[in-house]
Amino acid sequence: MSLADTRFETRRRKLASSLAAQRIDDMLLTHLIHVRYFSGFTGSNGALLVSKDRTAKVATDGRYATQISEEVPDVPATITRKVATELLAGVVDGHRVGFEADYVSVSELEALRKACPEGVTLVPVSGAVEEIRLLKDQLELTRLEEAADLATQALEQLIDAGELAPGRTERDVAADLEYRMRKLGAERPSFDTIVASGPNSAKPHHGAGERTLETGDLVTIDYGMFRLGFNSDMTRTFALGEPNDFLREIYEVTLQSQLAGVRAAVPGAKLVDVDAACRDVIEAAGYGEYFVHSTGHGVGLDVHEAPYAAKTGKGTLQEGMTLTIEPGIYVPGRGGVRIEDTLFITSGAPKVITKFPKDLTVL
Amino acid sequence: MSLADTRFETRRRKLASSLAAQRIDDMLLTHLIHVRYFSGFTGSNGALLVSKDRTAKVATDGRYATQISEEVPDVPATITRKVATELLAGVVDGHRVGFEADYVSVSELEALRKACPEGVTLVPVSGAVEEIRLLKDQLELTRLEEAADLATQALEQLIDAGELAPGRTERDVAADLEYRMRKLGAERPSFDTIVASGPNSAKPHHGAGERTLETGDLVTIDYGMFRLGFNSDMTRTFALGEPNDFLREIYEVTLQSQLAGVRAAVPGAKLVDVDAACRDVIEAAGYGEYFVHSTGHGVGLDVHEAPYAAKTGKGTLQEGMTLTIEPGIYVPGRGGVRIEDTLFITSGAPKVITKFPKDLTVL
Repeated sequence: MSLADTRFETRRRKLASSLAAQRIDDMLLTHLIHVRYFSGFTGSNGALLVSKDRTAKVATDGRYATQISEEVPDVPATITRKVATELLAGVVDGHRVGFEADYVSVSELEALRKACPEGVTLVPVSGAVEEIRLLKDQLELTRLEEAADLATQALEQLIDAGELAPGRTERDVAADLEYRMRKLGAERPSFDTIVASGPNSAKPHHGAGERTLETGDLVTIDYGMFRLGFNSDMTRTFALGEPNDFLREIYEVTLQSQLAGVRAAVPGAKLVDVDAACRDVIEAAGYGEYFVHSTGHGVGLDVHEAPYAAKTGKGTLQEGMTLTIEPGIYVPGRGGVRIEDTLFITSGAPKVITKFPKDLTVL
Repeated sequence: MSLADTRFETRRRKLASSLAAQRIDDMLLTHLIHVRYFSGFTGSNGALLVSKDRTAKVATDGRYATQISEEVPDVPATITRKVATELLAGVVDGHRVGFEADYVSVSELEALRKACPEGVTLVPVSGAVEEIRLLKDQLELTRLEEAADLATQALEQLIDAGELAPGRTERDVAADLEYRMRKLGAERPSFDTIVASGPNSAKPHHGAGERTLETGDLVTIDYGMFRLGFNSDMTRTFALGEPNDFLREIYEVTLQSQLAGVRAAVPGAKLVDVDAACRDVIEAAGYGEYFVHSTGHGVGLDVHEAPYAAKTGKGTLQEGMTLTIEPGIYVPGRGGVRIEDTLFITSGAPKVITKFPKDLTVL
């Protein structure tokens, strides 16, 4: 059995332990990225039952019969159109079966209830899988680093090719960046690429529109690559020609804030304190009211996942977590800056896996 | 008030009528594409309450305060982080409030229950919005036709540029096609682009991988464009160089099957019969066992939505619906063909909005 295979078993073992503590006998996984996480199956229809005795069963439909035998050689598979209800129907009498309350819809639960054998109890479970996902294993770290490296290469290529330049639209730049990521192996962008130029840079949730880039603009690019089940997330702000003093100042304040956040991201640090480390720098410079969002989030199977570094953040950082540090200053009508890295939390200083330079690049 | 604005009111009126028939006083919409469909709001956090007296309320968070006032000028907006629970808290005592049972998770329902005023009853509603979405209005038809036209242009450009050719990988071709769609206005692909070449063309759910295209291959391209809230969906199969007699035969059978399906897609036709119209041609030619999926589906806000033309299809076609007709023949080890159009059902013959030629193109 290869390393890749035992990793799924290790994850299932962690889940089984967590279940035992909640008096759950079997966990019915139906959220597809979780089915993939615990089994390796990548099809678009599937369910997985993980039992407290560490056995598992998987189900998919006929389209994926060959694929599931290749991808999940170590778990018995049932081929059926009704993947979740079929697994549920085979559960041992008297068992308490957990279902994913955060992902199962009210209608889906109704269907599960109808299929549930009489002596079996359905129990809503929330957060158990996310708890395991919080700490990344070695293969996850490798996948995340690969995605970040390839995404960084795409941005370097974009700039080397002169595609980030006055006269082009935001949409053109986004299309070119996504194309370069695709050619480097992205299955798709992790989220709709943001290219926010000039006045649009002051809108933290701007997409990529029809505006034509102009000399004197700041341009914020926030983008990511989805590849082999994992995501990347990085933001850089560029200047097209020499920026005015105001824009240079908010760039410098944002950069100092970002660096302070990276320094604060060590095991044991409270997530509120990581947020405060960034926020304090921006507030001290007098721009506090213009930092209108939180400092960061984890990156993994989802591009936004726990932990969350925010004013309302709960808990502390641990080795093995990921976290973005992405402060920003957005001054309506004048312009904005955001700088974002994705970090691995290690025993010492965090490892920054988004390696594009952060000093202001003037194009 | 512009045409665009009254269209949302018209849709809300239809919903209000449907609600009255179910003794629902207010409908709480939280599925974002439905919030957009009934209000025009395009942000990533929002909820809409539509009442039987035809009034409505909308909610979003502070990031979208300006945007919602521009996009939804005709509905009062609440700015809050807890969009659904805040709207629910304001419901009139004694009312029955519908929620979207197919989209609300078990955990989300729990949160709604906690926020629900004592005299208010939460009622699961399923399918009411989908029923309204089944029949497209004029603006929807226009948007769907625009997306289909632009996607067709992208494919034409790809071929004119010689980008579908031996020596290139499936991934290269997919990347080029997606790039061309993006430049023509796509916000993203409607689904992961399929480029299935040679032996991969016999796998109906192949993606776009590392295989290099070769002379003699059939190449099936199934792709779509998401733009302004709507999707497109079309499949064509190409030959790289002269195909062998077998491949030419399954192409011709698939084409005749597809044309029979298009002819059958008229108002009043049973969806099972539309499926049978395609299936009969393939079965008569002796390839019935190789047509392993259903004939088609609607296209709209979702790229796969009701109605469904399948062996198990329910109901009949009506004017104003959309439907794909996409038969295929997949012979493992030898190759496959799929040909797909998206149709508008009209009072007469259907309008085919995916206009790329269907005679075999040999490149």
